Amino acid sequence: MNQQERWRQGTDSGLPKRVHIVEVGPRDGLQAESTFIPTDTKIELVNRLVGAGVRRIEAASFVSPKWIPQMADGAQVMAGIDRAAGVSYAALTPNMRGLEAAIESKVDEVVIFGAASEAFSIRNINCSVAESLERFAPVARIAKETGLQLRASISCSFGCPYQGPVSVDAVVDMVRRFRDLGCDEIDIADTIGVGTAHQVQRVVEAASREFPLASLAGHFHDTYGQALANIFGALQVGMTTFHASVGGLGGCPYAKGATGNVATEDLLYLLDGLGVETGIDLDAVVSIGDWVSQQMGRENGARSGKALMARKVLN
Amino acid sequence: MNQQERWRQGTDSGLPKRVHIVEVGPRDGLQAESTFIPTDTKIELVNRLVGAGVRRIEAASFVSPKWIPQMADGAQVMAGIDRAAGVSYAALTPNMRGLEAAIESKVDEVVIFGAASEAFSIRNINCSVAESLERFAPVARIAKETGLQLRASISCSFGCPYQGPVSVDAVVDMVRRFRDLGCDEIDIADTIGVGTAHQVQRVVEAASREFPLASLAGHFHDTYGQALANIFGALQVGMTTFHASVGGLGGCPYAKGATGNVATEDLLYLLDGLGVETGIDLDAVVSIGDWVSQQMGRENGARSGKALMARKVLN
Repeated sequence: MNQQERWRQGTDSGLPKRVHIVEVGPRDGLQAESTFIPTDTKIELVNRLVGAGVRRIEAASFVSPKWIPQMADGAQVMAGIDRAAGVSYAALTPNMRGLEAAIESKVDEVVIFGAASEAFSIRNINCSVAESLERFAPVARIAKETGLQLRASISCSFGCPYQGPVSVDAVVDMVRRFRDLGCDEIDIADTIGVGTAHQVQRVVEAASREFPLASLAGHFHDTYGQALANIFGALQVGMTTFHASVGGLGGCPYAKGATGNVATEDLLYLLDGLGVETGIDLDAVVSIGDWVSQQMGRENGARSGKALMARKVLN
Repeated sequence: MNQQERWRQGTDSGLPKRVHIVEVGPRDGLQAESTFIPTDTKIELVNRLVGAGVRRIEAASFVSPKWIPQMADGAQVMAGIDRAAGVSYAALTPNMRGLEAAIESKVDEVVIFGAASEAFSIRNINCSVAESLERFAPVARIAKETGLQLRASISCSFGCPYQGPVSVDAVVDMVRRFRDLGCDEIDIADTIGVGTAHQVQRVVEAASREFPLASLAGHFHDTYGQALANIFGALQVGMTTFHASVGGLGGCPYAKGATGNVATEDLLYLLDGLGVETGIDLDAVVSIGDWVSQQMGRENGARSGKALMARKVLN
């Protein structure tokens, strides 16, 4: 049987039965938007998403308000939301001070990060990759000692806005380093959306030789329109956790006018069509995406969100 | 070897080495836009696309100007363009009058169409599917006798805005009917963009049991963000001809604000990334998409087009 026949036979099977979606709109999404969203709106956003069936959600970022003023109210958001049973609320913690604030806010999971590109690390967080990992080591240790879930995000896993191509080896090296810091989950992130489907399959497969595939997550941006094709490719090599942002919240800071995170609505539409379960109600998320886009005075970045809203209005 | 292992082994191979792109922006794209484009701009659009390496292009629609006024200048467009050697120029011909005009304009290929949905046929062209095929029979016969390439497009192959789901059998039935009319090529068209990747694989495989796979073309709309995932799926089952529209020209008439044809730029970005040859220069198409979007006073519908233009401006 040749390769072609294998693909043919693979049609309609070979995909995971169920995947986990990490909703990143309220944190990674809002963080990249220039509009400040009132705390009450953020709280309502998180609560409504959980009501739609979301079980993992990024809710806050404990970073210096000097750098990201629109996320300065992380503690108030965490204090204001309804903490639903069985839901994991995550926060970004770039340093010990952030971790302490996250612990005080009783988050379930903290997120650290590092780039697969030296140039990006220098330009984005003003230190080398090695230095960034040293800084994260105590954050990781205390997080684990406190009993928190620890997740790491590898930015620029498919390309860098400053250095261009990023090698598979550079990503795998970061996977090993984060594994050695005791991370429970590692995100393979296409920060600028430049990856394509076979490249994604190659990187995911290489990463899975160093870290359990079930604990790798795909974080794809739709800047070049590739996110869903990349996720379809990742599903075919067995990846089961994906990040998505309601309404496509979050622009791409490196390309004006370009889109950022893949929209949760578009991802759910794909997964529903493939018969892959998520436990999340697409119709409810479509309404939330429409609502939050209106709150922010921005266009809805979810293509299926817009199409399904138009259908609702017609019916 | 289980299915999962087959997919894994399939990574990075099993795709066609080269695919044909039919550029539909100047016809299918412009036809769905409400703005009237001056004839000179249409001519320049066709010439520039051919200059970028496009070898198959929809250049005109010989339909009644009463129905589609923005395409009333088909004969002038065909007379005004530079006819490059080795390039096939196509026109839509809904009836004998259209065919006669197309022959007079010396097009290389004519396109007829029919729906896989009875409800769509009635609502869109005011007759049953069977009646539409009867009307096309003489068009098809004369086209073949004249030595023209004859292509048929099956609309609503994955869903219908009026009846909802469309069965694989309904599509296969249309494939047989168009085959029996002597068509050289048949388009499987997702008119409203509702299909997802496995559904696409199923329909393409079923169609290919009735008609050569190499003469089937995929026409995908990005209304629900699925177009590139669908094309990636179709490539995996061996499809080698795809339609695309520069700048994503063409809205979706059934969902206000929603996107239409998959953008040529996004498709080329995917194919370049997969190492699948097209003979078309992405960078040149990005410039054309930016230019034509400005001419029409519309936002560029190509995600990679926008991202790559932003990079050009920065460099």
